[in-house]
Amino acid sequence: MLDRPFSLAQLRIVLVGTSHPGNVGGVARAMKNMGLDDLALVTPRCEVRTSEAVSRASGADELVAAAPVHDTLESAVADATLVVGASARSRNLPWPMLTPRQLGGCLVAELTPADARVALVFGREDSGLTNNELQRCHRHVHIPTNPDFSSLNLAAAVQVLAYECRQAWLQEAHPSEAESAMPFGLEWDSPLASHADLERFFDHLERALIAVEFHDPAQPRQLMARLRRLYLRARPDQMEISILRGILSAMEKKAGASR
Amino acid sequence: MLDRPFSLAQLRIVLVGTSHPGNVGGVARAMKNMGLDDLALVTPRCEVRTSEAVSRASGADELVAAAPVHDTLESAVADATLVVGASARSRNLPWPMLTPRQLGGCLVAELTPADARVALVFGREDSGLTNNELQRCHRHVHIPTNPDFSSLNLAAAVQVLAYECRQAWLQEAHPSEAESAMPFGLEWDSPLASHADLERFFDHLERALIAVEFHDPAQPRQLMARLRRLYLRARPDQMEISILRGILSAMEKKAGASR
Repeated sequence: MLDRPFSLAQLRIVLVGTSHPGNVGGVARAMKNMGLDDLALVTPRCEVRTSEAVSRASGADELVAAAPVHDTLESAVADATLVVGASARSRNLPWPMLTPRQLGGCLVAELTPADARVALVFGREDSGLTNNELQRCHRHVHIPTNPDFSSLNLAAAVQVLAYECRQAWLQEAHPSEAESAMPFGLEWDSPLASHADLERFFDHLERALIAVEFHDPAQPRQLMARLRRLYLRARPDQMEISILRGILSAMEKKAGASR
Repeated sequence: MLDRPFSLAQLRIVLVGTSHPGNVGGVARAMKNMGLDDLALVTPRCEVRTSEAVSRASGADELVAAAPVHDTLESAVADATLVVGASARSRNLPWPMLTPRQLGGCLVAELTPADARVALVFGREDSGLTNNELQRCHRHVHIPTNPDFSSLNLAAAVQVLAYECRQAWLQEAHPSEAESAMPFGLEWDSPLASHADLERFFDHLERALIAVEFHDPAQPRQLMARLRRLYLRARPDQMEISILRGILSAMEKKAGASR
């Protein structure tokens, strides 16, 4: 972990020539969900601040309201230290290409200076970015899609890249939230049972199964092995072992009473 | 790589109690973009096969048309060998929780048997899955979001999980597409220049800079070091080195002519 993990505020989403206000709203929602808030618009082909945009933004419409509208891509990315253009795979002149995950992976290095800015540039719904616009980018990023149906909705494309950026940020800022070291995830309500707890449980289980005459140690088949495999796979917590042993004690009591 | 990588057709998206046909269309588009095609609906709270659904599906409406409508979650996931419920972080009774990336990571093992099926279950737009529904899932999955604005659009949530599933599948089926071994990405139009190519270029560059009297080897400052750092960082290909050396030859010719 760095002393200063990068900030998601150092990332800007730039939408070029957007046609549908609903998509601008959807982009704002996807950004705010992932903790991004810097949205810039370049020559939108629609009125962007409409009721449809507000509706799709679903509470993130302040990002749309605050978004500056630029006449040129250059002015929207003027202060960016890395400009990344979303692109279908390039054809004539290949350009340095990142996957979304590689994009996330490079953010720590790119955004270590506090004044560094990364701009992620998305093109028109129907035709993407022009070659001219793509050639103003340091890198291109391509979301791997089904080759037979490759055109992502604009808000969906922003969602995927913003998600990867947030994942990269979480790994720096909150590594425990990015991937949990716990077998079940971050939060659990009882500590895991220890090996000794489990062995005491298995001993108790076997005694109880004998008591209820389900298990005959002279003809063990694979019963205890199968039960071990089941419970060990589940990795019981201390509370669960306590409950199970309570059940076993109740079984033994009934078995004793029935003699 | 496995002999038989798992198939994305082994994944099912299950939508429970969806209210907005546009979201069903958006989910279908996100699925088809990522190569998934098995959609099931449980007690939708709207007519799902509307013009809005077709419009948002943007060419993936055959998934909506083919989606069976179930009366219960149980019947929609009856054949699933792993049922994963999308969930906000659980509170009272924690459940085994995956991150989206961990979900992708477990698919290879889960889907190795060709008849295995993983169902990803998504709840209502306003209230998610009920506790009762969540307790029918083997695992929960939580998309890490901004804690102050955590509710993802339904299609956006499906997009993120389908993206992680496709990434996991690509790593098995087409590892070269998941992450490229090339420094610039998968495709490049000219082989990289070799070390020897680059050293011949740097020699030529220094001769040319001397010829145009920009560089004085007696007072080198850091000029050549800085130029080396620039070009080495860019990792030029053979074509680019050929172009650069052509420029240097042209410089030398002018310098010779001006004497």
